[in-house]
Order: sequence, then structure tokens, then C-alpha cells
Amino acid sequence: MQGAHPMAVLCKPAIAVPEYVITQDDTLELARRLHKDHSQLRLVLRLIEHTGVRKRHLIQPIDKVLKHPGLDARSAVYEEESKARVPAVVRQALDQAELEPQQIDLIVYVSCTGFMMPSLTAWLINTLGFRSETRQMPIAQLGCAAGGAAINRAHDFCTAYPEANVLIVACEFCSLCYQPTDLGVGSLLSNGLFGDAVAAAVVRGNGGTGVRLERNSSYLIPNTEDWISYAVRATGFHFQLDKRVPGTMEPLAPALRAIAKQHQWDAGELDFYIVHAGGPRILDDLCHFLEVPPEAFRFSRATLTEYGNIASGVVLDALARMFDEASAVEGQRGLLAGFGPGITAEMSLGTWASTPDIAA
Amino acid sequence: MQGAHPMAVLCKPAIAVPEYVITQDDTLELARRLHKDHSQLRLVLRLIEHTGVRKRHLIQPIDKVLKHPGLDARSAVYEEESKARVPAVVRQALDQAELEPQQIDLIVYVSCTGFMMPSLTAWLINTLGFRSETRQMPIAQLGCAAGGAAINRAHDFCTAYPEANVLIVACEFCSLCYQPTDLGVGSLLSNGLFGDAVAAAVVRGNGGTGVRLERNSSYLIPNTEDWISYAVRATGFHFQLDKRVPGTMEPLAPALRAIAKQHQWDAGELDFYIVHAGGPRILDDLCHFLEVPPEAFRFSRATLTEYGNIASGVVLDALARMFDEASAVEGQRGLLAGFGPGITAEMSLGTWASTPDIAA
Repeated sequence: MQGAHPMAVLCKPAIAVPEYVITQDDTLELARRLHKDHSQLRLVLRLIEHTGVRKRHLIQPIDKVLKHPGLDARSAVYEEESKARVPAVVRQALDQAELEPQQIDLIVYVSCTGFMMPSLTAWLINTLGFRSETRQMPIAQLGCAAGGAAINRAHDFCTAYPEANVLIVACEFCSLCYQPTDLGVGSLLSNGLFGDAVAAAVVRGNGGTGVRLERNSSYLIPNTEDWISYAVRATGFHFQLDKRVPGTMEPLAPALRAIAKQHQWDAGELDFYIVHAGGPRILDDLCHFLEVPPEAFRFSRATLTEYGNIASGVVLDALARMFDEASAVEGQRGLLAGFGPGITAEMSLGTWASTPDIAA
Repeated sequence: MQGAHPMAVLCKPAIAVPEYVITQDDTLELARRLHKDHSQLRLVLRLIEHTGVRKRHLIQPIDKVLKHPGLDARSAVYEEESKARVPAVVRQALDQAELEPQQIDLIVYVSCTGFMMPSLTAWLINTLGFRSETRQMPIAQLGCAAGGAAINRAHDFCTAYPEANVLIVACEFCSLCYQPTDLGVGSLLSNGLFGDAVAAAVVRGNGGTGVRLERNSSYLIPNTEDWISYAVRATGFHFQLDKRVPGTMEPLAPALRAIAKQHQWDAGELDFYIVHAGGPRILDDLCHFLEVPPEAFRFSRATLTEYGNIASGVVLDALARMFDEASAVEGQRGLLAGFGPGITAEMSLGTWASTPDIAA
């Protein structure tokens, strides 16, 4: 479906990563020390090496991350850290979109690594000067796909209300889902893959420099709902990763091709690609199945290398890197996509708009 | 804001309440037995009597509800019971809207009483014949306001995509949030107030009989984000209710008046009112502040009396009762509103449409 007013522009995201850093060497050493008797330790080490993650950022020192203090304490840390770290990122995203809090009509808050009710949206509205009439859309259950979903729901909202502006916030403290008792290969790999970050971006209904959103879609790979999931336990969220997940670009590539085709574009011939980098295989496979060179995914790969998998924050961070490269030219066409539990892809197509809104 | 295509029609909701029934007498007896030494037992009993809740329905026998089996087991019950109880309600809602699963473009799934990732949307798509392209909007953090929010986000989506149809599902098993160790007056009152139910409804972009949605808005009462909240603990969600909550209709009534005024309507002069019945005071106060007679809230009051506070399901159940009364006449104007944590009101205005869609 294409909306009647495809004028919404996704402006430059703001990103903050926390101050505690763990390198891949640290991670490998830790895995060797903690799991020295694990029967599949060599496989785990090889998988971690192959992630290409050079370092990750954490909200707490690694010694603290590794000690599970109980869900009550973790919930308190989530609330405290999100209140400490989100506001500056939100302010920067607003500044970059040249908007004031009062001009925001909807806040889409995505976070799958902690749970609050009300979500942080209520506190943000009260604290940062948003209007009391601001709509709130908190989403906790789309995991890594939520970055794409947030962009798409913001796009839909601006299509419904062409004058509206939407703030997207992705707050992911993956280290708060570390579970010391989970010893499967998928869990140990995840422990070496995920990082913490806060990201925010504004979708402007009118004006702005960035990606003019033109079409979005969603695709669920049939019967894969247990491939990425949480077990919700007394110790919190336990991330469960099926070993078939890295191969999911093969069934998702046709969905990426389909949305492009609906737009009379060729998914293999676009000017930029901003996709969720869940792991290195996703990017390698997309190169293969979309028949594009590896450089096409340099922004997503840089996010993975520098920060690890920061869940719903990846697409926003990768997009910010594209802004920083400053190579995009008016009218260039691109694809954005988040991938996550379901297995779900949240995809969108957009055109680089470097000038104030002009009639399409 | 008003959309360009205010043609979306909220069709007749389907509701299912579980087979285990607890009457108010049972509840009072239970409170007397379990809390016989509680210093405020008399206050608690009086508050429960004053709810006006005659009976509630539960997914498990009361003996089982009262024994907390741990969060791991409760999460399993939530998944099992939602998979057992949601499909029939969804099918009925689709039948009532005269649509097939393939015609649904978005599923808004609201539930604040259990948590799954992926949410039930993925399983529903796989199991009930929805298209793989169906968008998923799972919302867990808007509590009782989520019934109104689901209607509003469905309305927005149909405004963006005028041919689209949206399925709303509200799955609330409040008894799975019973916490035997919570002994505050607010908790004991809540134990006598909340009930379990599953509700679903379709918002059709074109055609259909029901409430033609014309305008929606949201309002957050400043600095009340801790008045209704969850503590997320090893034992699950702990509902925390501030004693000021029953008085929140005074600050919310002006927001209800404001949305009506924006639409050139008078909030005190409408033909129907479908609001969240969190408790009896909400309804009494709305009568007072909107200057409407008690009968205006007969649908919401019937839901409260027969089922208790079924969280996000209340507005859908109250609306179904209005359909059943069959007294609405083409062109009659009404207000729908959910209230919940934030403190947030999700409001909408609509007109009864008993014929296929005609140009507005």
C-alpha cells in the first residue's frame, strides 16, 4: 500500500553508546574463562570471532553485567539508566530535525530489553516538554525488527496526518538480558554479540533533510515464531536463538525484492541500504541474494563492528553513519529494513531528500 | 488532527469470558478469610462492595489463581490460554465485520497481563490464515488505556491507507497478575475488581456497520506517571494503584470536552458514550463533569457489573453491548475513551453508520 502523502522525512538519528567498553578479545577471554569445560567452547569462540564485532558498549562494568542481581534489581537499573541516557539523545534528534518538543505529535518508543508500565513515553512527555496531547506508541515485543517497525509506523502516522512529526526512540540495554545460567551455543554466541545503545530520530511530516519515506511493508516468514523468542522467567527475559536464524535472508530476500518491485524499483540496484545487522551472515547473505556488493552494507557493518548488535537501534545507527559519510545525493533511492522475532522483516523504501519538501 | 479519509468503521466486537466465575459474595468472603487480621479489612470490603462488580470470569479456578506458581509457570499459562481462547474471538470479530483473514492489513494486539516475544500476532498470522504481509502492532504498556489506543491506531492506519482493514485483539488475563504478597489497600481492592476476558474487533476501511471513526486524540495528565504502574519483579507484574486514581476524571473531563469541541460537538450532548470502566467512581464522575445522565454509561457499567474491570477489553465489551441493544440510529454521535497508566486517556469521536460506506 502506498499512502496519499509520501512526504515524511526520516531525519538524522542521534545515538549514544555507554561508557563501558568490552573488546572482542575481552569477550573471547571471558568465554574461555567462564566456560572452560563447555563441550562446544571451540565452536562458541569461532562463532564469536566470526561476528566481526570489534567492541561493544555496556551500561555497567562487565563484572556487574555478569552478576545477575535478580529481576527486581534489573528492572530498577533499566528504569534508572533509561531515564539517565535517553533525554540527551532525544534532544539531539530533535535538534537535528530542527524541531521543538512541542512540535512532536507521536512518540514511538521501542525497547525489548526492559519493561516498564507506563513505558518511558509518559516520563519523557512530563520531563522533556512534550505536549500532553502527544500520542504514545510503546512497543516491546518486536525485538530487533522494532527499529524498522518504528520507522514504518511513524511513516504511516505522517501519511494519515501530513503535518505531523513523530519522534522515534530505541532504548536497548541488551546486557540487562544476560543470563548466566543459559549455556546453549546460541546463548553464548548472543553474549558475545549484543551491545547497549540508545538511539532516536524524528520523522518530519514536512521539510527536513534525510530519507523521504515512500512505501513500507512487513513480512513474516511462515512458521518461524519460535526461532527468535524470549522465555519470560523469574530471572527476566531469556533470549532463545535458533541456529536456523542466520539463514533467514534467503526467505526474506524475496520480500525485499517484492516491495521494491511494487515501487517499480529493483532491490538489487538501489543507491543505499540500511538494514538490521543481526550478525555477519545476514549482511553476507543479503549481498548474495540481492546481488549487491559488500560496500552496500558498509553502514550496517560498521554498526556491528563498533557496537555489536544493538537490537532495534542498529538501523538508526547505520543511518546516522550514512548521514556522516555525507555522500548521499538528492533523489538517490534506498531500502531500510529491520529483522527480528516472528521472523519478521519491517521494510521501507525512501529517497534522499536534501532540501525542504517539494511536491512529489 | 483530522485525517483526510475519516471513513474507518469500527465493527461489532466479539467477546469471550472464561468459564470460572467468582461472584462479589465469593470475593468478599475470600477477602475476609485471607486477610482477617488486616488493619484495613473493613475499608477493603467496603471498597469492593462499592465497585458494583457482581461477578467476574477467570481462566482458572479461584484456588489455582490464588497460588502463585512462579513467573515461569505463569508465562506458560498465559501463552497456553491465549492460544486457546483468542482464535474463536478473532474469527467471530472477522465474521461480524464480514471479512476474511486475508483482508486484514494490520493486527493491533493489546495485552498488559502477560508478555511474550514474539507477541501472539506471529502465531495468529501463522495459525489463522492471515497474510504474511500483515503488519503487527503489539502493545503491552498502555494498560487499560490500550483498548482506546488500539481503536485510535487502527483509525490512523485506515486514514493512511483508506482501503485497509485492521484487526484489534485485547487479551487480558488479569488473574495472572494476582500477587498474594501485595497487601496494600489498592492491591486488595484490585483483587476484587479485575477480571479476565478476550475481545476482538475489526476496523474496516470501507463499508461495515458500526462506529465511523472521525477523530482521535490522546491526553496525559501531567506528572501522574506513577499513579498506575507495574513493578516488574521476579514474581511478575505487580500492579500499583495510587488512591488518587479514582479522582482522575476531573482532570480528564476537559480533554474529553476539548476533542469534542475541536469537532464542533458538545461532549455533554452526545448520543452514546463508550468508556473504560476502571471502577464505579470513573462513571459517576464522568456523569458529573460531562453533565450527562447515568444511563449514558449503561454499557460500560454493565461490563463492570458483569465482568469487572477487564482492562483493555472494557471499551470493546461495552461497545458490543451497544450493538446488542440495537438502539443506535444512523448519524448518532458518540465518544469512545480508554483510560489507563500515564495517566493517559485515548479518546475518539465517531458516528453510527448502519449502512455501507457513503461519502461523508
